[in-house]
Amino acid sequence: MTSQLRKDHISGRWVIIASERSKRPDDFRPAQPEKKDNPAGFCPFCSGNETKTPPEVFSLRKNGSGPDEPGWWVRVVPNKFPALTRGALPQRASQGLFESMEGIGVHEVIIETPEHDQEWSDLPLAHLRDVLWTYQQRIRSIETESQYQYIQVFKNKGKEAGASLSHPHSQIVATPIIPKRVKEEVWSSDRFFRKTKKCLFCRTLEQEITAKERLIRINSHFAVTAPFASRFPFEMRVLPLRHSPFFSKVSDAELLSLADNLKAVLTKFRNILSDPPFNVILHQGPHPVLARKTWPNVESLFHWHLEIIPVLTRLAGFEWGTGFYINPVPPELAASYLRE
Amino acid sequence: MTSQLRKDHISGRWVIIASERSKRPDDFRPAQPEKKDNPAGFCPFCSGNETKTPPEVFSLRKNGSGPDEPGWWVRVVPNKFPALTRGALPQRASQGLFESMEGIGVHEVIIETPEHDQEWSDLPLAHLRDVLWTYQQRIRSIETESQYQYIQVFKNKGKEAGASLSHPHSQIVATPIIPKRVKEEVWSSDRFFRKTKKCLFCRTLEQEITAKERLIRINSHFAVTAPFASRFPFEMRVLPLRHSPFFSKVSDAELLSLADNLKAVLTKFRNILSDPPFNVILHQGPHPVLARKTWPNVESLFHWHLEIIPVLTRLAGFEWGTGFYINPVPPELAASYLRE
Repeated sequence: MTSQLRKDHISGRWVIIASERSKRPDDFRPAQPEKKDNPAGFCPFCSGNETKTPPEVFSLRKNGSGPDEPGWWVRVVPNKFPALTRGALPQRASQGLFESMEGIGVHEVIIETPEHDQEWSDLPLAHLRDVLWTYQQRIRSIETESQYQYIQVFKNKGKEAGASLSHPHSQIVATPIIPKRVKEEVWSSDRFFRKTKKCLFCRTLEQEITAKERLIRINSHFAVTAPFASRFPFEMRVLPLRHSPFFSKVSDAELLSLADNLKAVLTKFRNILSDPPFNVILHQGPHPVLARKTWPNVESLFHWHLEIIPVLTRLAGFEWGTGFYINPVPPELAASYLRE
Repeated sequence: MTSQLRKDHISGRWVIIASERSKRPDDFRPAQPEKKDNPAGFCPFCSGNETKTPPEVFSLRKNGSGPDEPGWWVRVVPNKFPALTRGALPQRASQGLFESMEGIGVHEVIIETPEHDQEWSDLPLAHLRDVLWTYQQRIRSIETESQYQYIQVFKNKGKEAGASLSHPHSQIVATPIIPKRVKEEVWSSDRFFRKTKKCLFCRTLEQEITAKERLIRINSHFAVTAPFASRFPFEMRVLPLRHSPFFSKVSDAELLSLADNLKAVLTKFRNILSDPPFNVILHQGPHPVLARKTWPNVESLFHWHLEIIPVLTRLAGFEWGTGFYINPVPPELAASYLRE
C-alpha cells in the first residue's frame, strides 16, 4: 500500500501518512525512561522554595497562608528568564530590509501543583480544573493590557518537549503582534465562514462525531480527536462542543468537563506510550478588542481548541524545507489505540 | 537588556532574540557525544553491502566496476522505506471537509561516501563537489517526470536531526504539489520584485556584505551568513553570489566553490560545537516548466540557497502555537564565533 497525502484544512499544510512505515505504540517506547533533573535535589517550583522564584502574581492557597509562602496548590510567577518583558507598545525599527522591535510582552509560569511528580494524569479532577481556571484568570488579567495582541498558553512536559524544569508547569506568553500561525487559522476559518456561514471547527466536529474513526473520547462538553492530517503519531485535538473563540469565556462546568477529558486521554496516552514527553498548546482568537476590529465576525468564525503533541519523532530536513510532515501512524490507528 | 523581536523578510515569521538567555558555544556541548548506531555492526550503506539496498539508480565509480558492486565513491539508491512512490499524478479525493491524494513521488538516498565515518568536513573538496554534482544529476533526471512539482534535497546528520542511519547520506524527495513553505518564499520574492524590480536575495546579499556583522565566510561564488532573524543558535544560510532560481543551473566551478565554503564552515562549526547534529536544506524554485507558468518572472525573482540548521535547542509549545522561535544566541554573536 502506498502512502497518502492529506491536507490539514485549518493550516493548509500537507502531511504524508506513511503506512509503509506503520508503527505500533511499542515501537515508540524509549530505550530508557527520561531522567528527571536532579531528582533528590533542589527545585525552585517545589513548596517551601517560594523565595527562589520572582514574587507570585496569583495563587490558589489555603486561608491564612500569605503570598510566597507554602499553602498554595496553584501558583503563578513571572518567568525568571523571560523571553519578553512588559513595556509600552514599541515602534517597529528598520535597518535596510530588516525589521525589528523591542521584545515587549508578558512571560509567566503557572506552577500547577506543589508536588514535584504530580502530572495532569495524577491530579484530582478538581485540581486540574483549578489549573485551567488559573489560565483563564491570567488571560483576563493580561487582556487588560491592550498592547498585547495575542496570549499563548502552553505546557511543555519532559526535556524533549522543551521543559527545562521537570516540576509540572505551564507558561503564558503575551506577544505584541498576532503570530503568523494564529492569523493562518483565523484566515482559514474566515474563508470557510464567508463561503458557508458556518464555523469550520463546528463542521469538523459534526463530521468527526459521525465518522467515529478518529474520535478518541467525547464527554458532556468536549470531544478529543486524532486530526485527519495529524503531523505526529498520536497527536490529539481537543474541541469544545460549544462554539466560542475565546478560552476566557469557558464556564466552570465546562472547565471540569475539559479536565475530565484531559485526565482520561493523558492517562491512556501515558500508559500505552510509556510516559512520553508532550506539548499542550492552546489555540484561541487574538485579543478580543483587536480581533473584533479586524474580523467583525470573529465570534462566529473562530473556535478555540487545544492541541496535544507527543514528542516521539524528530523533525528533519524534509519537514524544514517543505513544511510537510511524515507521520508513520495513521490517525485512525492512533485513535483506536487511544480510545478506551 | 530586553530581548528583540525580528522579522524574517523571506518567510514572514518573527523570532525572539533573547539576549537575557544569551549563550556561548560551550553551553551547547552535549553531556556526552552522540553514540553511532551499532558502530562495529552492520551498515547497509558501507561498501561491500550494496546488495542490502535497492538497486542503484546512479553512481560515480571506478572504471571496470559494475552497478551494485564496490568501486563507487557516490551512490544513489531508492529509499527502502519510501515516504512517496512513483506513479501517475493522482486525483485529489474529498471526504466531507477532508482532502487527500495518493502518495506519489520519488524518494532516493544519496550515499555520499563508501566510508562510514567521513563527514562533509572530512571529505576532500573534489569529493564533496561530486556529492553536490550528484544532486544536480538526480534533479535533472527527476525533472523529466513532469508530474512532480517540487524536488526537495536535504541532509540529516545525527539521530537528533532525524537520521536513522549514521553513514553520511542525503535524500531527495519529489512531491506532486508545491509545498507551502516553498510557495511562501516565492510569494515574498514576487512581492518584493513587483515593488523594486530586484531580487530579494540579491538585495539581502548586498546588505549583509556591506554590514559584515552577520557575514561568516565569502569566497569566489558564495556567501555564508547568519540570518538576521535566525530561529536557532548558529543557523547559517548559504547564498550564491550569482542570481539563479534553480540548483541544476549551477556551474562546475561554482559547485567547487560551494564545496569549499561548506567544508570550511562545517569544520569550524564541528569544532566549536562538538560535532552537533544538523540539517542541510536546499531551497530552490519549483519545477521550471510549472514555475514559469505560475510566475513568468521566476528567473528574475527567485534565488536558490541552502540552509544549515544545527539541532541544539528543542521546539516547544510556544513555537508550535505561534510559529515564533526563541533564539538565545544573537546571529551577530554566532557569526563572530563561526568566522575564521
